[in-house]
Amino acid sequence: AEWNKVLLGVLTGAVALTIGILLGHFAIDKGSSVPDWVRDASRDVDESIIEKFLAELDTNQLRENLRELTKVPHMATTPGDEATVDFMLKRWQDPNTGLDSAWRENYKVYLSFPNKTSPNKVSVGKTGYLFTAREREKVYKPDQEDPEVVQPYAAYSPAGNVKGKLVYANQGKMSDYELLNRTLDLTGTIAITRYGGEGRSKKYTSFIALNAINAAKFGIVGVLVYTEPYDMNDGLVSESETYPHSWYLPPSGVERGSYNIDFGDLLTPYLAAKDDTYRIPKEDITGIPPIPAQPIGFEDAERLICELDGDDAPNEWQGSLNCTYKLGGPGFKSTSTFNNRLEYSANVMGIIRGSVEPDRYVIYGNHRDSWVHGAIDPSSGTAVMLEITRVLGKMVKEGKWRPRRSIIFGSWGAEEFGLIGSAEYTEEYFSKLSERTVAYINVDISVFANATLRASASPAAQSVIFTASKQVKAPGTTTTVYENWKQYSNRTSPNYGIIPNVGFLTGAGSDYAAFMHYLGITSMDISYFYDRSKTRARIYPAYHTAYDTFDYASTYIDPGFTSHQAVARTAGNVLVRLADSLLLPFNCSDYAESLDQYLGQAVTAFEEKLAAKGISMGEITRFSRLPLKVRQMNDQLMLLDRAFLDPLAFPEQYGFRHVIWASRSSSVPTFPGLADAVEKAESTGLKEDWDQAHKHISIVTQAIAGAAHTLDDVI
Amino acid sequence: AEWNKVLLGVLTGAVALTIGILLGHFAIDKGSSVPDWVRDASRDVDESIIEKFLAELDTNQLRENLRELTKVPHMATTPGDEATVDFMLKRWQDPNTGLDSAWRENYKVYLSFPNKTSPNKVSVGKTGYLFTAREREKVYKPDQEDPEVVQPYAAYSPAGNVKGKLVYANQGKMSDYELLNRTLDLTGTIAITRYGGEGRSKKYTSFIALNAINAAKFGIVGVLVYTEPYDMNDGLVSESETYPHSWYLPPSGVERGSYNIDFGDLLTPYLAAKDDTYRIPKEDITGIPPIPAQPIGFEDAERLICELDGDDAPNEWQGSLNCTYKLGGPGFKSTSTFNNRLEYSANVMGIIRGSVEPDRYVIYGNHRDSWVHGAIDPSSGTAVMLEITRVLGKMVKEGKWRPRRSIIFGSWGAEEFGLIGSAEYTEEYFSKLSERTVAYINVDISVFANATLRASASPAAQSVIFTASKQVKAPGTTTTVYENWKQYSNRTSPNYGIIPNVGFLTGAGSDYAAFMHYLGITSMDISYFYDRSKTRARIYPAYHTAYDTFDYASTYIDPGFTSHQAVARTAGNVLVRLADSLLLPFNCSDYAESLDQYLGQAVTAFEEKLAAKGISMGEITRFSRLPLKVRQMNDQLMLLDRAFLDPLAFPEQYGFRHVIWASRSSSVPTFPGLADAVEKAESTGLKEDWDQAHKHISIVTQAIAGAAHTLDDVI
Repeated sequence: AEWNKVLLGVLTGAVALTIGILLGHFAIDKGSSVPDWVRDASRDVDESIIEKFLAELDTNQLRENLRELTKVPHMATTPGDEATVDFMLKRWQDPNTGLDSAWRENYKVYLSFPNKTSPNKVSVGKTGYLFTAREREKVYKPDQEDPEVVQPYAAYSPAGNVKGKLVYANQGKMSDYELLNRTLDLTGTIAITRYGGEGRSKKYTSFIALNAINAAKFGIVGVLVYTEPYDMNDGLVSESETYPHSWYLPPSGVERGSYNIDFGDLLTPYLAAKDDTYRIPKEDITGIPPIPAQPIGFEDAERLICELDGDDAPNEWQGSLNCTYKLGGPGFKSTSTFNNRLEYSANVMGIIRGSVEPDRYVIYGNHRDSWVHGAIDPSSGTAVMLEITRVLGKMVKEGKWRPRRSIIFGSWGAEEFGLIGSAEYTEEYFSKLSERTVAYINVDISVFANATLRASASPAAQSVIFTASKQVKAPGTTTTVYENWKQYSNRTSPNYGIIPNVGFLTGAGSDYAAFMHYLGITSMDISYFYDRSKTRARIYPAYHTAYDTFDYASTYIDPGFTSHQAVARTAGNVLVRLADSLLLPFNCSDYAESLDQYLGQAVTAFEEKLAAKGISMGEITRFSRLPLKVRQMNDQLMLLDRAFLDPLAFPEQYGFRHVIWASRSSSVPTFPGLADAVEKAESTGLKEDWDQAHKHISIVTQAIAGAAHTLDDVI
Repeated sequence: AEWNKVLLGVLTGAVALTIGILLGHFAIDKGSSVPDWVRDASRDVDESIIEKFLAELDTNQLRENLRELTKVPHMATTPGDEATVDFMLKRWQDPNTGLDSAWRENYKVYLSFPNKTSPNKVSVGKTGYLFTAREREKVYKPDQEDPEVVQPYAAYSPAGNVKGKLVYANQGKMSDYELLNRTLDLTGTIAITRYGGEGRSKKYTSFIALNAINAAKFGIVGVLVYTEPYDMNDGLVSESETYPHSWYLPPSGVERGSYNIDFGDLLTPYLAAKDDTYRIPKEDITGIPPIPAQPIGFEDAERLICELDGDDAPNEWQGSLNCTYKLGGPGFKSTSTFNNRLEYSANVMGIIRGSVEPDRYVIYGNHRDSWVHGAIDPSSGTAVMLEITRVLGKMVKEGKWRPRRSIIFGSWGAEEFGLIGSAEYTEEYFSKLSERTVAYINVDISVFANATLRASASPAAQSVIFTASKQVKAPGTTTTVYENWKQYSNRTSPNYGIIPNVGFLTGAGSDYAAFMHYLGITSMDISYFYDRSKTRARIYPAYHTAYDTFDYASTYIDPGFTSHQAVARTAGNVLVRLADSLLLPFNCSDYAESLDQYLGQAVTAFEEKLAAKGISMGEITRFSRLPLKVRQMNDQLMLLDRAFLDPLAFPEQYGFRHVIWASRSSSVPTFPGLADAVEKAESTGLKEDWDQAHKHISIVTQAIAGAAHTLDDVI
């Protein structure tokens, strides 16, 4: 057999050696005289198991999971969150459909809540005008009446009582404030900004902290952030056109968010937040706004923006509210109080023990906490995870299947406050996870909308996602998830021609961050997504509001739960393949293709500029083509992403160690350290900044060369 | 068989699984019907091969190796060094006794040399007295006449022309300067200090830089460093009692040294020093003296110290020179010029490819460069390495043996300038070495003296060193190296009773530093050493002088080369065992014993003090006992030391990441970060410094807990 030859060709590593020998000499040559233990150790993915697994994933189960998970608001550490902990444990400990074992792990973490008895207030006064913003979203369904619905707020922004002239600052980007600063004195003002700026390509909301951090540099004393209907509602603003009449955000809906930039518990950077752990002083927390911030809905934003006077805002700053947006306006007042405190947040962990390689882990996770009911974010993902564990658990309990490698399921706590549960987990088990984890699969929001699959991943994982998605039917079509995806989002690959476009995991948008960036584990994030030709909504409109409910999800997002099912089937298929494949289904040449793409961007954008400063890109060019005589060996494959880690490459960016996929400010889609350094050097023109660009070339070169060395012949 | 049962008990890991199955079911149960490939894959250490190997290691070959290596001075990158590169390559590429392959690897590194045409000068003038220190050591044998003998100097100390009153500052420790500062105004003075202070427990010489770094803090403008005969010569000072009449240092002998604290190339921290690599500006180099320094011999030191006036120095500051040491004295002048430049330094690399696990490496190394002829330092070690490679190479070429794992031999360049060759190698191949290296064996100075074995090691390696040393006869005795060692240096182990004392690798004394501290690879350093009851010599007296020659080594250190042979046999035996053992011979409970020892020290010294500040040591106590249900699996064993790495634990200490074995200033022999933090907090009394102590408890706790997790049951 062809693959037998391949195996015999890679006899040089311990794992592959063994399996190759066992297979080559017994399973194949000697047929049925093979002892059971040889057959077990040499078994590859069983396609009939995958078929059975896919068939069992059930839309009714998915719907009932979601209904149960979203009965009450379950913000991190609240009673509702505790109820979901119990629910997960009950399911994972079920004698017929549960996992081998399941337990909770607590961390004592620093969370930020509004003060219930003294709610945050926003008001505006000028001659003949007094307006106070609403403190709760309008009630359309019983869900919004729940007393546990938290007042919209900007977690981790400081409490404060500020007054000042109101100015409109578009998306709160540095360039927005700079433009405004040319005509207005911003000192002592309060800025109203819209969501969707600095955070765009990074964490869905966390980089919103920059709206306020940037503002403070101009002497601004407070920031309001609102959801612009042009960005979110395709321009629709009336109650009759929004939820509960459509999926669009009602005028009073407010997007909550955590206004911190670093992920993980803010008081215990790099250390797991156990009871006795050293905690930095609160005043040493970095990456949070120095001035108060408050999110508001567009109903209230309209009352503020349409009262502004001064010059007209530029065209591209205009939105869908019923007036011309101007730059400066009336006096304004904002009061916020917070009750920030340490709380125990739980991860719920569950495992299926591997049969052959129990000390190799495939981890599948999602957070459990929401801002309010969180039907889409995150419960659509949790519903999928629970349905996957039900079907796999049943097969295990019935003795029909056991994965080759161990599978770890993680239901992370306090993600909304900054990916806290997953980050603390990776800190506590750093060495063990680093040595043994094959891959991390993240399914957070599983269904943004029901048009097409969306995946972001380390390039090593592209091929297994493709394999899985070719075996799943796309809901509402006659084709596969793969073919449907290729129609909605594709690119031309030098190796394969037109293929679906897999995004990169360059930010910290969900719990994959600590796995990808801090541990260097091959990671991926999978969901169902929009038809971009039909809406320009920044994200599904009820995101982080009191309208993200079971009613909303089951009426407007995925009524038949077929998109949930498609995600469960695709992600679950990937999971089983990673756990059962004899040789890990990671593809180094796909990684090389992405590196070539990055290198091409870097050469195009920077080579000439750098040469002008006497800095050569020679070495990086030489090393960037990973050797194609790649040995398809699991150890190397598992550790491939680890080889790109450099804990000192970005000392100022918490937890970002992966020199290829780290967060990037520059618009050039290439090596982040290099791109940002060149951008800075160009703007300052300083020799020391060009030196930093040179340094980042050396860092990337060494990382790529180091990764190539791990794929070289053995020595 | 018992070990078969053990193997069957650990069937849970891929490597052990395989081997266990193969062995358990074929090699043992089915005897001679076993196919060759199964026998190969399941072969353990072959004691008959070890016996044959030990018998072939030959004293005459060792002597001739040393003679050849020390024909001329071979300071890094000089023509003499190039000649040793050629010699090593010729030997390792020999068709009958060479390795599978051998090659050189160049790095472009920043080195510091005295200026040949303008030598460094030291002179003293006062009324009726003018004295100029000698620029070369006195000639007793032709070796000292070689024009390539470099003028004694303090590498990396700045050039300068300084004048000032001379003061005597003992060992140049902070406490020495502080004491002096109580009675004298040190501003503008020049200090004469003796070797052996701050650097004592760390790198043999590099921490000597502190003599000058400390001095500068008191306004001192230049530092002389001399070798005190009390410390080095057991008090002997006359020419008739020193070399060539004994092993003691002649009056004109001067100890050269590199006056830098950080290891690796100083211009490319964390990056391999390739041609195009980014280099930091020279003015950003840290860890070098801010004021000129110059080493001198005790003949010259006597002329200076005995001219001093002022108060008598304290008793413990007195030495063996022929006068009472006083604190302050005459005017003094020192001129130094340097020619610091980038040079290509070569590592010579050689390999024997493993048969079963070629992608697992055992690395054996020593530096090749010396200060002058370097017969003891480092050529005694290189002679041993060449004899080991000759015998192993011959067995491989004759088809009689091939190791299970690959063996990599490294002949490092530019160690004397700060462990440069080995550090650059670990930077260039960081990921690959980190993933695959089983252990690093360092044999630098192989024979300090001929009394007893000395070994420092990660505790995991203690047992294999013991096993090896029990199989070697101690020269000049009727007992084994192990029993002889136990007589000279022992301790009482809770697990074993009285055993030889294996030191810890807590500093950066030789090329093991980058492997142990930067990569977390289980490392060891092996040599033959003094009878401490017979001499208090700080190190062998000709160390780093023009008298460290073949004549000196073969006349006074090891005339029969039997101690060289004993080291070759012990280190070579360890090497073969690490390369051939089916299960790695590392012992986790020995590691646990050392951690318990550290913990005991920490609790005794700090628990009460910390409790008084409200900081609990509870967690660290709970975790410190590594689980004894240890699975003896190679992957875990290989990676055990890696689990203690924390790249951010000591941000101010270059390359030190191992939280247990990092360098330590405190005298309490326990966790270095904790010990130093408590010491600092006690001296300042500041809350923020106690907070740092708390932080280091959390760092150590997490590292130990993390290591324990890697040894736990699989999940």
